[in-house]
Amino acid sequence: MNRWVIVAGGDTSAAELREVKQEDRLVAVDGGVITLRKAQIPFHIAVGDFDTIGPAAVAELKESGVQVEELPREKDMTDTQAAVELALAEGAEEILILGALGGARFDHSLANLFLLERIHSAGAQGVLCDRNNRLRLYIGDGRKMELPRGRFQYISLLPLSEQVEGLHLEGFRYPLSGATLLRRHPMGISNEWAAPVAKLSAVSGTLLVVESKD
Amino acid sequence: MNRWVIVAGGDTSAAELREVKQEDRLVAVDGGVITLRKAQIPFHIAVGDFDTIGPAAVAELKESGVQVEELPREKDMTDTQAAVELALAEGAEEILILGALGGARFDHSLANLFLLERIHSAGAQGVLCDRNNRLRLYIGDGRKMELPRGRFQYISLLPLSEQVEGLHLEGFRYPLSGATLLRRHPMGISNEWAAPVAKLSAVSGTLLVVESKD
Repeated sequence: MNRWVIVAGGDTSAAELREVKQEDRLVAVDGGVITLRKAQIPFHIAVGDFDTIGPAAVAELKESGVQVEELPREKDMTDTQAAVELALAEGAEEILILGALGGARFDHSLANLFLLERIHSAGAQGVLCDRNNRLRLYIGDGRKMELPRGRFQYISLLPLSEQVEGLHLEGFRYPLSGATLLRRHPMGISNEWAAPVAKLSAVSGTLLVVESKD
Repeated sequence: MNRWVIVAGGDTSAAELREVKQEDRLVAVDGGVITLRKAQIPFHIAVGDFDTIGPAAVAELKESGVQVEELPREKDMTDTQAAVELALAEGAEEILILGALGGARFDHSLANLFLLERIHSAGAQGVLCDRNNRLRLYIGDGRKMELPRGRFQYISLLPLSEQVEGLHLEGFRYPLSGATLLRRHPMGISNEWAAPVAKLSAVSGTLLVVESKD
């Protein structure tokens, strides 16, 4: 599996950084450079307009042999989107995005969330992760998705499409069978594991699977 | 206008609380009780399972004459959703929600965001606000929405439906005419005002209008 890990400028804890593997292709997005340097983790590529780290740090990166993709300040996508497009163009099969939720600006968090759909539309798998949350997409096609119990307590299911039909949940504290969920009336918040592996399936719609803890 | 203000347990600054008017119907959701007490703002109703403030504080609320709507801990909606349903049942025409974004759990923030659609479907107007963000919906029907420049620097437009068609922007730094925006490829992040009042319209789709600052 050709996995790319993109580290954006938001809060990223040591726990997430420990998930980075030797064989991953590692990309720092602007402020993510600071995160990775503090953690003394070498990375392959730096992407951004670099308004956070500034030109001196960019020059230093170039000298140290890091591939630098410098973007204009005025553009029609965010730095993190640009990093995802780069990863997809290079054939990423899986993309893990860290430090892309929970900043002051909710529009950025949302745009990053919608990147999961962009990644899926390119035939790859995306995961968005921070200290308290792990987000993935499930596209309703009848197939079963397995969710092993990990470090999170809650598992919430939120429709991203207007509705999700034929939802089956097993191994959940609150199981469902053939349910319809509506985006405007989310009923799937704070479900929990009732088995080591919870399983879900749906026949249509786009579902956001959010594992979280307080 | 019959306006309700719902104060949830998340971070709420003095600036947002100053927007609360004498004639608003004011609801505290669980931890929102603490926010409003600290700010010495009296409220009409308290809603929640009260796992944050605990039973002693609930008893005190009842004694002081506040209407208390105690919810079970196990339920198929969040406390904030329940507060919105209460406001809608009581004929709210406008609902301002504070303290409902930016907590540790992203599923809660998202469920609160989707409440804007629930509020719209009931024929009312919803606004979600915190220190750095103000979120509203625009439903594409050709009508013009006016956005006066206020305390925010950026104005981002994110499709909540799969796409938004026929988008026109005037008075924006980056204007558009008849554009289509896709949810999976958000291009409308960090637009700015180029006039005291920016105007937008679209012919179809559901658009999230996010005013923000860093």
